[in-house]
Amino acid sequence: MIEIGLLGLGTVGSGVYEIIHQRRNYLQELLGYKIHISKVLVKNLYIKRNVDINRSILTDNAMEILRDKDIKIIVEAIGGTTDAYDYITEALRRGKHVVTANKAVVCKYFKEFIELAKKNNCAFLFEASVAGGIPIIKELMQNISQLNDISNIKGILNGTTNYILTKMFDNGLNYEEALKSAQELGFAEEDPTDDVEGVDIARKLCILSTIASKNIILLKNIKRSGITKIIPRDIELIKSLEHKIKFIGSFNMNRNNQYYGVVEPVLVKKDSIYYGVNEANNVVSIKGSNVGEIQLLGQGAGKKPTANAVVSDIINVIKGIYYNYDFDFEDNAKVTNIDFYKNKYYFRAITNDINDINIIKEQVKIGNIIDKIVDEKKSFSFITKRTSLNVIKDIAIDIQNYSNGIWYARIEK
Amino acid sequence: MIEIGLLGLGTVGSGVYEIIHQRRNYLQELLGYKIHISKVLVKNLYIKRNVDINRSILTDNAMEILRDKDIKIIVEAIGGTTDAYDYITEALRRGKHVVTANKAVVCKYFKEFIELAKKNNCAFLFEASVAGGIPIIKELMQNISQLNDISNIKGILNGTTNYILTKMFDNGLNYEEALKSAQELGFAEEDPTDDVEGVDIARKLCILSTIASKNIILLKNIKRSGITKIIPRDIELIKSLEHKIKFIGSFNMNRNNQYYGVVEPVLVKKDSIYYGVNEANNVVSIKGSNVGEIQLLGQGAGKKPTANAVVSDIINVIKGIYYNYDFDFEDNAKVTNIDFYKNKYYFRAITNDINDINIIKEQVKIGNIIDKIVDEKKSFSFITKRTSLNVIKDIAIDIQNYSNGIWYARIEK
Repeated sequence: MIEIGLLGLGTVGSGVYEIIHQRRNYLQELLGYKIHISKVLVKNLYIKRNVDINRSILTDNAMEILRDKDIKIIVEAIGGTTDAYDYITEALRRGKHVVTANKAVVCKYFKEFIELAKKNNCAFLFEASVAGGIPIIKELMQNISQLNDISNIKGILNGTTNYILTKMFDNGLNYEEALKSAQELGFAEEDPTDDVEGVDIARKLCILSTIASKNIILLKNIKRSGITKIIPRDIELIKSLEHKIKFIGSFNMNRNNQYYGVVEPVLVKKDSIYYGVNEANNVVSIKGSNVGEIQLLGQGAGKKPTANAVVSDIINVIKGIYYNYDFDFEDNAKVTNIDFYKNKYYFRAITNDINDINIIKEQVKIGNIIDKIVDEKKSFSFITKRTSLNVIKDIAIDIQNYSNGIWYARIEK
Repeated sequence: MIEIGLLGLGTVGSGVYEIIHQRRNYLQELLGYKIHISKVLVKNLYIKRNVDINRSILTDNAMEILRDKDIKIIVEAIGGTTDAYDYITEALRRGKHVVTANKAVVCKYFKEFIELAKKNNCAFLFEASVAGGIPIIKELMQNISQLNDISNIKGILNGTTNYILTKMFDNGLNYEEALKSAQELGFAEEDPTDDVEGVDIARKLCILSTIASKNIILLKNIKRSGITKIIPRDIELIKSLEHKIKFIGSFNMNRNNQYYGVVEPVLVKKDSIYYGVNEANNVVSIKGSNVGEIQLLGQGAGKKPTANAVVSDIINVIKGIYYNYDFDFEDNAKVTNIDFYKNKYYFRAITNDINDINIIKEQVKIGNIIDKIVDEKKSFSFITKRTSLNVIKDIAIDIQNYSNGIWYARIEK
């Protein structure tokens, strides 16, 4: 029998419990052992649970689980970076394998966890931390990172914001209405900042790009801009251009070990795969020197897909089918100068005054970056020629006094 | 040092040689051993090679490789089902691990190879046999098949025919011209039957559905219809419907262990992911009870992606990171009655005679399956209501005397 200690009985934790329970006979046959969740950490022992569980295995004392010598595998599903950090490090120090779905803690303490796991000869697996049911971590570790120079990783990595953008495009909701709908469905937190400002995506991008580049990529080095400034007029105009806005994290690395990581709203066109990834779905794309571009799509969040990823990791721990990070993570990659990246942008400046529109038009014409004007009635909005982000930023500063709402977004090639 | 025997030095074989050579230092660091291709089987020792290789390691005698006790891993890259079968079984009997890219032999002898590998405690890995650089086999084995009831697997699994259809849709070529273009680029064989009649896709579908269902699914039980009957008028009409034709293999399994496997041209609409998978790219979709739908896209063929999959398998053999098929494959699944599957169809009947068009129209109206007529000038073509394939076939028989060209294709929901 393999005993497992489960930390947390929220969405992911209860999903893990259910899958292991449902599949117990099959898993026993597959593994040659019975898998048994013998203790579960909860905050409150007495509240009603949505999962059918024997209350005698619940505890509110983490050390009772971490000190239990019969427990060989710890599943961390409490979230956050404080207690989760303490429990993961304590478990690894005690020689227990750890499986987690917690991107925040993995992103923040990646190197420490990997080194601690290696030192104590344990597995530290975190498939569920990025893109829910999509097996992107294994894919990167087992198939791509070993044999390819990876030049680009990008993705729609957050289900909540993809749902919000889908509602804005397909159902005509404005940002506030779409956010409210996401909150009512339980997709978005009461404080949605981490999602809508791109912090959640940036964390996942850090994890993926750290593995891909074998360099520790820090959260602070990922640039971010959020989706809160998008207005209905943008949706109208962008629809007329046969594009959609997607909230995308992307990481580019060149041969000189210089990288550029960014999370931003991006316009994708109708024939892009990303255009068709809607609702709470996710997609991840990786470009490798041998495999070319590989893309994985699926449900990026939700109880069952995320729990499936956790239980897959548990199976792989028990069968010994996982990679130890035998290589050392480097610390020598540098953030590149963004002036190297030239793109087309959608640029919108709202104003109610025709005089201001004319002034803006002249200013932007002087900047010589207009490729195509898409609106000069309700706003002054245009598509730029290929240009660097810094030029766009300068233009925005030049005209800010004539507009009560400037927003711009990169257009995917 | 780990010695490898490579059987075949064609496209895949030379790609494998090149990747191992290019990455030799990194692989040595990763694995703790040097990997060395010590012998290579070729048909002709004396022809010029496109790969920079020491001729002293070439041999035209397979047994010289298979009998070599220092060789622990055999890579089979000769193709076909005769010699390949002999070499694979011989290698496994001698306790050597086998990695292959050969879908024909894997499809035909799946059960025998798996059992022989198990008996001799060897790995038998075949990631490269399906969808080239897309890691679908590992994905199925490690993440999905263990924890999910899989109700559907489908995919664009053949790069050659997807290239042909792309040329017909995007470049206005007719079938013969598109085939010729594929042959000139080396995508299509001189005899393209296996590709254009769907045999190649059916083989890959057998491999995937066998793993997914844990039942041996035989090639003869996969229904097939090819893409050779598509004419320019179809392309015109289907474009006007905002659809494209894709050549898709799909496998459905219900809870009673009844399945339906088919390879056929299918109309997919503009907002489908499949619509955007063009040229020689592939896509595979899997529906699992926990993970929902997961889709993987990438280059389905080609030297480097396929060789990458082979070398990944080699690494996984050496690191011991692979699944043995510990479960027994069942043999109790039954082909279901296709009358259970009701779909919309595109139906086209060519005729030059307006009287014949009217007769066909009346016949089909009697059949009461028309949802929308799309052409009654140059042909009589229409979209059906949801109906079973057998009804469509009956209609085709009823009107065959009045048309000199009938073709129909399922429309994806």
